[in-house]
Amino acid sequence: MSPKIPIGKLALLVSSLTDEELEPFTDQLKDVEYCTGKAGSMNMQKIIAAVETAAKRNHIIVDDVYRETHALYHAILEALNGVMRGQIGAGDMMRTVGLKFAIVRGSPYVELEEGEWIAVAFYGTIGAPVKGLEHEAFGLGINHIG
Amino acid sequence: MSPKIPIGKLALLVSSLTDEELEPFTDQLKDVEYCTGKAGSMNMQKIIAAVETAAKRNHIIVDDVYRETHALYHAILEALNGVMRGQIGAGDMMRTVGLKFAIVRGSPYVELEEGEWIAVAFYGTIGAPVKGLEHEAFGLGINHIG
Amino acid sequence: MSPKIPIGKLALLVSSLTDEELEPFTDQLKDVEYCTGKAGSMNMQKIIAAVETAAKRNHIIVDDVYRETHALYHAILEALNGVMRGQIGAGDMMRTVGLKFAIVRGSPYVELEEGEWIAVAFYGTIGAPVKGLEHEAFGLGINHIG
Amino acid sequence: MSPKIPIGKLALLVSSLTDEELEPFTDQLKDVEYCTGKAGSMNMQKIIAAVETAAKRNHIIVDDVYRETHALYHAILEALNGVMRGQIGAGDMMRTVGLKFAIVRGSPYVELEEGEWIAVAFYGTIGAPVKGLEHEAFGLGINHIG
Amino acid sequence: MSPKIPIGKLALLVSSLTDEELEPFTDQLKDVEYCTGKAGSMNMQKIIAAVETAAKRNHIIVDDVYRETHALYHAILEALNGVMRGQIGAGDMMRTVGLKFAIVRGSPYVELEEGEWIAVAFYGTIGAPVKGLEHEAFGLGINHIG
Amino acid sequence: MSPKIPIGKLALLVSSLTDEELEPFTDQLKDVEYCTGKAGSMNMQKIIAAVETAAKRNHIIVDDVYRETHALYHAILEALNGVMRGQIGAGDMMRTVGLKFAIVRGSPYVELEEGEWIAVAFYGTIGAPVKGLEHEAFGLGINHIG
Repeated sequence: MSPKIPIGKLALLVSSLTDEELEPFTDQLKDVEYCTGKAGSMNMQKIIAAVETAAKRNHIIVDDVYRETHALYHAILEALNGVMRGQIGAGDMMRTVGLKFAIVRGSPYVELEEGEWIAVAFYGTIGAPVKGLEHEAFGLGINHIG
Repeated sequence: MSPKIPIGKLALLVSSLTDEELEPFTDQLKDVEYCTGKAGSMNMQKIIAAVETAAKRNHIIVDDVYRETHALYHAILEALNGVMRGQIGAGDMMRTVGLKFAIVRGSPYVELEEGEWIAVAFYGTIGAPVKGLEHEAFGLGINHIG
Repeated sequence: MSPKIPIGKLALLVSSLTDEELEPFTDQLKDVEYCTGKAGSMNMQKIIAAVETAAKRNHIIVDDVYRETHALYHAILEALNGVMRGQIGAGDMMRTVGLKFAIVRGSPYVELEEGEWIAVAFYGTIGAPVKGLEHEAFGLGINHIG
Repeated sequence: MSPKIPIGKLALLVSSLTDEELEPFTDQLKDVEYCTGKAGSMNMQKIIAAVETAAKRNHIIVDDVYRETHALYHAILEALNGVMRGQIGAGDMMRTVGLKFAIVRGSPYVELEEGEWIAVAFYGTIGAPVKGLEHEAFGLGINHIG
Repeated sequence: MSPKIPIGKLALLVSSLTDEELEPFTDQLKDVEYCTGKAGSMNMQKIIAAVETAAKRNHIIVDDVYRETHALYHAILEALNGVMRGQIGAGDMMRTVGLKFAIVRGSPYVELEEGEWIAVAFYGTIGAPVKGLEHEAFGLGINHIG
Repeated sequence: MSPKIPIGKLALLVSSLTDEELEPFTDQLKDVEYCTGKAGSMNMQKIIAAVETAAKRNHIIVDDVYRETHALYHAILEALNGVMRGQIGAGDMMRTVGLKFAIVRGSPYVELEEGEWIAVAFYGTIGAPVKGLEHEAFGLGINHIG
C-alpha cells in the first residue's frame, strides 16, 4: 500500500526549491495543505516552537487539540534527527546559517479510513561552531494525524 | 560560506523526481557527476554494497583508492540515519518496498582548495515487518572527498 | 492537561502484576480496552509481530487500517527502547528468559477531541548472551491512535 | 537465575502508585530499602542531583563511597533513557509537569555472593515545550552496587 | 578523587602496544590483574563471549558470580561503543581484520572501600563490508566490580 | 590494507603518556605531525573550539580551508563519542577534572593516493555532576583529510 499522494516528497520540494523551481509542482500541491517557514537557530526548543507556530497560524493543525500537536511534534523530531545525522548533542554545537521548513498535511492513501498524515521537512545549510564549517542538511518526518 | 552548487539538494531531487520532473534541473546537473540506483532490501550491508558498486561502475569514485571509498561510506551512513530516523536497530525490522538512491559528486564551493564533495540521498517507501506498514522516507549524507 | 485515565500506568501494572496483585485495579481497567501476551525472544521482528497479532486478535486495533498499525508500531518501538536502555544493537545480544507485554487503549483526556491513545508496556527479565546474566527490564511507549 | 526479589518492579510500583494503591505491597517492601522523591525539571543535572541527594539522605547509599555513587549514577542514566525514549536531546526540550522517582536497594538473588543491587524508577507526565503537549513517561534502571 | 592506578590507561597500553613497547610499563602492571585476547569478528555476541571467556579463564572475574559478569558486560558495551563510534547498527556492517582486547582489574583508588574496578579496551583495525575500507579503532569501558 | 603508520595509536599514546613514557615512541612520531592541548570543560562547543584552535595554531590543518576543518570536526565528534560512551546528553552533565587531547596528522598508508589522514584522541578523567564521581575516559576519531 504505497502512498498515492507523496506528502513527504512534496514537503521536501517545498522546503528546498525556489518559487520558480516549485512551479511545475503547483498541481500536485493542490491536493494538500502546506506552509513554510524559517528557523534561524539550532536551539531545538526554538525550532519546534517555530514550526508549531507556523502550523497553527496557517491552520495546518488545530490549535487547541493536543493530539494534533503531539503528532506534529513527533514528525518534527524525526525530521530533526535527519538534519542532525544522529550526532551526539549536535544541536547545541551548531550555528545555523539558514534552515527552511515545510509542513504538509494530506491524505496520502486511497483508503478513506487511513485518514490524514503530516510531513515535516527541513532543508538548508548548518554550520558547526567553527567559522565556515557549513554544508547542506536535510530531514524528513512523517506521522499520522487525523 | 554557503555552497555555490547544492550537491545535497541535487541528490535529493535525483533520488525522488521522475525523469519528467527532473527536466528543469538538467542545466544544474551539468555541473556535477551523478548516478542513481535502487536498493531492494533494508539489509545495511546490501545497501552499502549497492551504492558503492554504482559509484564505482559509474566512475563517481575511483575504484582502488580507499580514501574515496571511506568518504562515500560515511556519506551513506549519514543518509541511512535519516532514512531510519534514529530508530533502534530499525534496519533489521524493515521490509523495503522501494528505495532509490542518488550519488552526486561536485565542487560545491567557489574556492578551489575546498575541492570535491560527495552527496548520497535515499528516497522511497519503507515498511515495517507488519504488512501494510509503509510510508515515505528520505535521507541525505554529505562528505568531502577530493 | 494531565491525563485523567493513566493508560501508561495501567499498561505497566498489567504487564508486571500477578492476577491477584492486579485485582485492586479492576475498576480502573474497566475504562480501557487491554490485552496481554508474552514475547519469548529478543528478535525485534518477532516481538513486534507478537504484539501486533495480540492487538488485532483482541480487537485493540482495527486489523486493516494502516494508520492504527502505524500508531501501535511507534508505541512498541518506544517501549522497546526502554527495555533495551539505549544500548547499541543490544537486541541481537540478548537471550530472553521471559517478557510479558500489555497493550492498553483508551481516552486519557477529558476533552473529547483528544480521542484515543494507545500504551504498550513490557516487563520481564532479559539476559545477555552470557549464561546467567539476567535482570529485570521495563519499557513503556504511548501514542495517539484514534 | 531469575531474581527472587524483583527490585525493579518494586521501584516501578513505588514510583507510580498512590499510598493507598501501594498498601498491598507493604510486605514485599519490607525486604528492601527504598525512598522516593520528586523531580520538577527535566534538566538532567538537577534530576541526577535530586535522586542522589535523596539516596544519601535516606541512607540508601553510603555518602562518601564513590563506588556506590557510580553504581547509582548509571542506574539513573538507564532510567532516564526510558523516560526520554531515546529522543535526541529531548531533555532540553521538556517542560516537566511532574515526575516521581523511587530508589530501591536490595538483594534480588538467593545466592549470597550476588550481593546488593539498586533500582531507580521514574514515573510521571512530561511535556514538550509546546503548551499542553504532555503524556505519561516511565523509566527503569538497575545496577549491582554492593 | 583521581585514580591512583590508571586501569583504563593500562588497558589501552596492553591492547595496543607490542610486547617490546610494553616493557617500560611492566612495573605498573604488577599492581593489577590483566589478560588479553583477540576478536576476529564484529559479531557482538561473539566478541562479548570471547572477552568473557578470557576473563574467566584467566581468573580476572569469578566464574559463577553473576554480579561480576554483569560488571564486565557493561564495561564491554561501553568499550564497543567507542569502537563503533556511535554508528547505527555498525556492528553488522563490519568485516574485522584484527581487534585485540585487554581486560584489567585493580583498585584504582587509595580508599579501601572504593574496592575493585574493571577496564576493558579494544584496539585494532576494523573494516567496512567494502573491501579495503579499514582503519584503526579504539574503545574503553570502565566499571566498578568488587 | 592495514595502516603502515598507526596515527590512531600514536594519538592515543600522545594523549595519555607522560613525557618520559613517550620517549620510546620518539622515532615513530617523526613520521607524523602532531600537537596536544587540554580541555577543561565538557561543554562540547568549547572542546571543539579548543581542539580546532590548537590544530590551526600548530599548523596541523590549514586555517582557511573549510574542507580541512570539516575533516577535523568529524574526527573530534567520533572521539567525543568514545569519551561519552554513548550516554544521553552526558556532555551537559559532566564536570571535567582534566582531559588532554592529541591531534596527529600523517599518511598512514603506503599507497600515495590514499593521502593524509587525521586522528584525534582524548584521555583524562571525567566527573559526573555529583562530587567525586570521576574515572578515566578515552576517545579516538580518525578521518581522511588531504
